[in-house]
Amino acid sequence: MRVKHKKWAEPLMEAHPEKMVLNGETVKGHWQGRFEKSQPIQLEVGMGKGQFIIGMAKAHPEINFIGLEIESTVAAIALKKALPEELPNLQLIRANGAGLETFFEDHSIDRIYLNFSDPWPKTRHEKRRLTYKSFLANYERVLKPNGKIELKTDNQGFFEYSLTSFNNYGLIFDGVWLDLHHSDENEGNVETEYEQKFSELGQPIYKVTAHIPDRE
Amino acid sequence: MRVKHKKWAEPLMEAHPEKMVLNGETVKGHWQGRFEKSQPIQLEVGMGKGQFIIGMAKAHPEINFIGLEIESTVAAIALKKALPEELPNLQLIRANGAGLETFFEDHSIDRIYLNFSDPWPKTRHEKRRLTYKSFLANYERVLKPNGKIELKTDNQGFFEYSLTSFNNYGLIFDGVWLDLHHSDENEGNVETEYEQKFSELGQPIYKVTAHIPDRE
Ligand SMILES: C[S@@+](CC[C@H](N)C(=O)[O-])C[C@H]1O[C@@H](n2cnc3c(N)ncnc32)[C@H](O)[C@@H]1O
Ligand SMILES: C[S@@+](CC[C@H](N)C(=O)[O-])C[C@H]1O[C@@H](n2cnc3c(N)ncnc32)[C@H](O)[C@@H]1O
Repeated sequence: MRVKHKKWAEPLMEAHPEKMVLNGETVKGHWQGRFEKSQPIQLEVGMGKGQFIIGMAKAHPEINFIGLEIESTVAAIALKKALPEELPNLQLIRANGAGLETFFEDHSIDRIYLNFSDPWPKTRHEKRRLTYKSFLANYERVLKPNGKIELKTDNQGFFEYSLTSFNNYGLIFDGVWLDLHHSDENEGNVETEYEQKFSELGQPIYKVTAHIPDRE
Repeated sequence: MRVKHKKWAEPLMEAHPEKMVLNGETVKGHWQGRFEKSQPIQLEVGMGKGQFIIGMAKAHPEINFIGLEIESTVAAIALKKALPEELPNLQLIRANGAGLETFFEDHSIDRIYLNFSDPWPKTRHEKRRLTYKSFLANYERVLKPNGKIELKTDNQGFFEYSLTSFNNYGLIFDGVWLDLHHSDENEGNVETEYEQKFSELGQPIYKVTAHIPDRE
């Protein structure tokens, strides 16, 4: 997500080490201690401005949520929104999703959300897609056995690609929806910023949920 | 497909044993002998009135095609269309797709097509869907190792179900298209009757191609 550089961004993040992690390496193995309660952890990779992860943290106090975002200014906007909510089950981290294993211990996460990830439509950019097989291998590493991955997007090409990539990697589908907002699965759905924007334009929202197989 | 009973249907089929198989058991193991040349065999399960399988046989003389249909009158309509074409690489069979192993030897088919199969939307009818796991097991049995399955449909619920069922069965996706007619994959596409009808109404056509994995 491209946003104009905001000069308050870095100082705000630095002023809130209790909510925002800037050096993921230092918290590896200590995530549960950053939440009020020790409970299952769910992670959004590429949270953008944080509408989804904040909404999820409000709706599900029994789960600990982590919002991860690579862009400093975007992460700072999410932080600014999150602070007044004072959610004891929400943490944010500015980091590159390509390096998950440096911030999270193996098999420590229950679920990963990928929402409206950048589609990188050109074939030569395939490796940048958050559903490319190297990313899936990282997700498998930090997810618990049978851990889930949930993906939502409006982008047809990215969805076609992600279904194929998930399948080829060996993920097991729990469900596929080609028009989430007109399906039973929409109950309890928490919208992201992009989701709200695109569904208002009348575009269908695609969703797939899948889990890591037993690799015995 | 429901069509009005035609009293010429049975007599026409009986008059053309060289083109139409009515007792599948009797030809098991002898399919190649029914074609002009011995070459790879591709099968459509639920061919309807035969537009697709006839079109494919015309376009690909290097492949032997078999169109299978359960409804006598519908199969007879396909036969009536096929006869004047005099295609040496096309055979038809009136039979229930649930019994493939009684008409085809194990690992004798190169590819199976499922086009606009009846969606059976009610959960209690799941077992009737041509992509239910018991059907997939039959397809695996008659397909060669790495044999392909290609599915096209306009039905959103059936497509969502079939993607999940294919994946859960262990099929490996080669490609997924959420709008076939506006994709590269449309080149060389042979339309079925249903496909023509639904795409003229502006509905997107879904497609998935997958193959049987090595089960070692
Ligand atoms: C299109 S936005 C969607 C934001 C939000 N999830 C939504 O649905 O509204 C994608 C976001 O992913 C972030 N992103 C892209 N690649 C990333 C990576 N490798 N690691 C972390 N975040 C990434 C981008 O900076 C951007 O904010
Ligand atoms: C909706 S029509 C589609 C016909 C054609 N494939 C098309 O795309 O125009 C589905 C066809 O599958 C046939 N069919 C349904 N179940 C079948 C089965 N178990 N074995 C063989 N054919 C079947 C029906 O009789 C019907 O003709």
